[in-house]
Amino acid sequence: MASMRTIDWVDGAVEIVDQTALPLQTRMLRLSTVDDLVDAVRRLAVRGAPALGVAGAMGVALAAREYAGDERALVEAVRRLRTARPTAVNLARGVDRAAAVLAQGHEAVLAEALRVRDEEIHSSAEMARLGADLLLELAGPAPRVLTHCNTGGLATVVGGTALAVVVELHRRGALGGVIASETRPLLQGARLTAWELGQLGIAYRVAVDGAGPFLMARGEVDAVILGADRICANGDVVNKVGSYAHALGAQAAGIPFVVVAPESTVDPDTKTGNDVPIEDRGAAEVLAFGSAATAPVGAAAVNPAFDVTPHHLVTAIVTDRRVIRSPGLASG
Amino acid sequence: MASMRTIDWVDGAVEIVDQTALPLQTRMLRLSTVDDLVDAVRRLAVRGAPALGVAGAMGVALAAREYAGDERALVEAVRRLRTARPTAVNLARGVDRAAAVLAQGHEAVLAEALRVRDEEIHSSAEMARLGADLLLELAGPAPRVLTHCNTGGLATVVGGTALAVVVELHRRGALGGVIASETRPLLQGARLTAWELGQLGIAYRVAVDGAGPFLMARGEVDAVILGADRICANGDVVNKVGSYAHALGAQAAGIPFVVVAPESTVDPDTKTGNDVPIEDRGAAEVLAFGSAATAPVGAAAVNPAFDVTPHHLVTAIVTDRRVIRSPGLASG
Repeated sequence: MASMRTIDWVDGAVEIVDQTALPLQTRMLRLSTVDDLVDAVRRLAVRGAPALGVAGAMGVALAAREYAGDERALVEAVRRLRTARPTAVNLARGVDRAAAVLAQGHEAVLAEALRVRDEEIHSSAEMARLGADLLLELAGPAPRVLTHCNTGGLATVVGGTALAVVVELHRRGALGGVIASETRPLLQGARLTAWELGQLGIAYRVAVDGAGPFLMARGEVDAVILGADRICANGDVVNKVGSYAHALGAQAAGIPFVVVAPESTVDPDTKTGNDVPIEDRGAAEVLAFGSAATAPVGAAAVNPAFDVTPHHLVTAIVTDRRVIRSPGLASG
Repeated sequence: MASMRTIDWVDGAVEIVDQTALPLQTRMLRLSTVDDLVDAVRRLAVRGAPALGVAGAMGVALAAREYAGDERALVEAVRRLRTARPTAVNLARGVDRAAAVLAQGHEAVLAEALRVRDEEIHSSAEMARLGADLLLELAGPAPRVLTHCNTGGLATVVGGTALAVVVELHRRGALGGVIASETRPLLQGARLTAWELGQLGIAYRVAVDGAGPFLMARGEVDAVILGADRICANGDVVNKVGSYAHALGAQAAGIPFVVVAPESTVDPDTKTGNDVPIEDRGAAEVLAFGSAATAPVGAAAVNPAFDVTPHHLVTAIVTDRRVIRSPGLASG
């Protein structure tokens, strides 16, 4: 399963891993029509910005075949694809790239969709290579890493960001171990990262989020490696809540804290983490898991979805194009 | 409900809050026989070391009435009480204290059991008073506190340790707010602390464990206050996993980190936290949430039940008899 793709074009249709069934079931969905694909996007069966870009482009390839000769229906299909999720900019971008070559026919559209896919795969591979080189330099020959949230192929096509580095270390025979922190409240670590590592045959252990810093203090972790939702101009990193606590743990234990994210995540227009509004996603996520209530009826919660790791706690940032060391030192 | 007791002697029987029904139901159980009480202890309907001591002593009072005149049955009943949970030393201690006056009859036994209860209540009240005084000194006139795990009346009779301090601040009109961290994997914060605060009419918010340090960095917390399972000779504090991460957050935010625990928790025979074996409670607790699986079948986990907060991160320790400031400085 080492090269399984979250989304791909297989024998004339789009195949995706149904993310609504994970981690209990690994179910592939075959999407042969525009309606199939739009439905899968809406139900979050495929999710993650880069994967949605590929889905959008491949959706146009489906449309070009399905509605060949019916210009009006084709335009309408492209519109439906483009708006299947209104806020995912990658989806619209992927659709637009493929739609731009519609006049050249189905084959040209499919070729463009496959280019979108290949660019995502290439970007992941570059991050994996640069990140693995860096980790071996910073944390010794067989680092035991801790990672937070899900940064794997499920959000891209294959590989991912931080998790791609972990997989690359494994491929090189240089991975000493992986701890996946469960990542409350939505448990992306326990559900998705654990599933991806299991599929790849990489041994891992799940830990509750509160245990990470102690496991570092006890000498069980050589490096922390995770993703980013936004990287500010001064090097502050906005990422899934819990990242900052792990950064404090890494600093106290004297181990590197490495952030891996595509170049598009670097935002020179946001000066510092203080300038980023942090979404509070409401009490429901905290007070229940699935159907199991965790707190009394009527309980309140505070639920910041992200947190800010100040640049002085970040050892390095790896993108698909470069390694930024001690990001805080460059711009203070 | 401000004075509700976890366990008490009411109209000739032992009444307890059924902790197996929390937080969804608040159910009182009335235990009139030794068998009732032994069963409640075994099912963890009553738990927590101090509460078990009271349960044991009151159980002997039940036995003295139930088996009056049948010496052999009485001895057997005391043995059953004493061994209802093999490892809880407080249970055996409570039983022994009450059993020592059995020759003087039921009334004397009951009086001794009520003394055990009253001593626990007094100890809680002392910690509450000393802790509240200290917090107001360290964190200003209306501190917003964050607490971890459950340290309330459910483990004692009424009040508790760290949570008793929170309640005392509320009683004085000097509580600025409470955040209860949920305390994965067993959710004692979300389930039990939230329930106790709700019963007392004290507003609170639950947060996932990973959010605590960020909430401190964002200026939403004036002090962290929690309990201890063991306090080492050098001031290192062994407590529920996640405590250390919160201590790192408090240090980074420049706010006090206060530990509240009875004098009996101070262990001069254990030099440092490194000398304390930390129990790993196995994967099942981490990989499920109530009845809901959180990770793929076959996932592994690392699950330290406790962690060690080094003394240099502890601002003060409050017991029922004293306040120990900067515990690390005394013995380094």
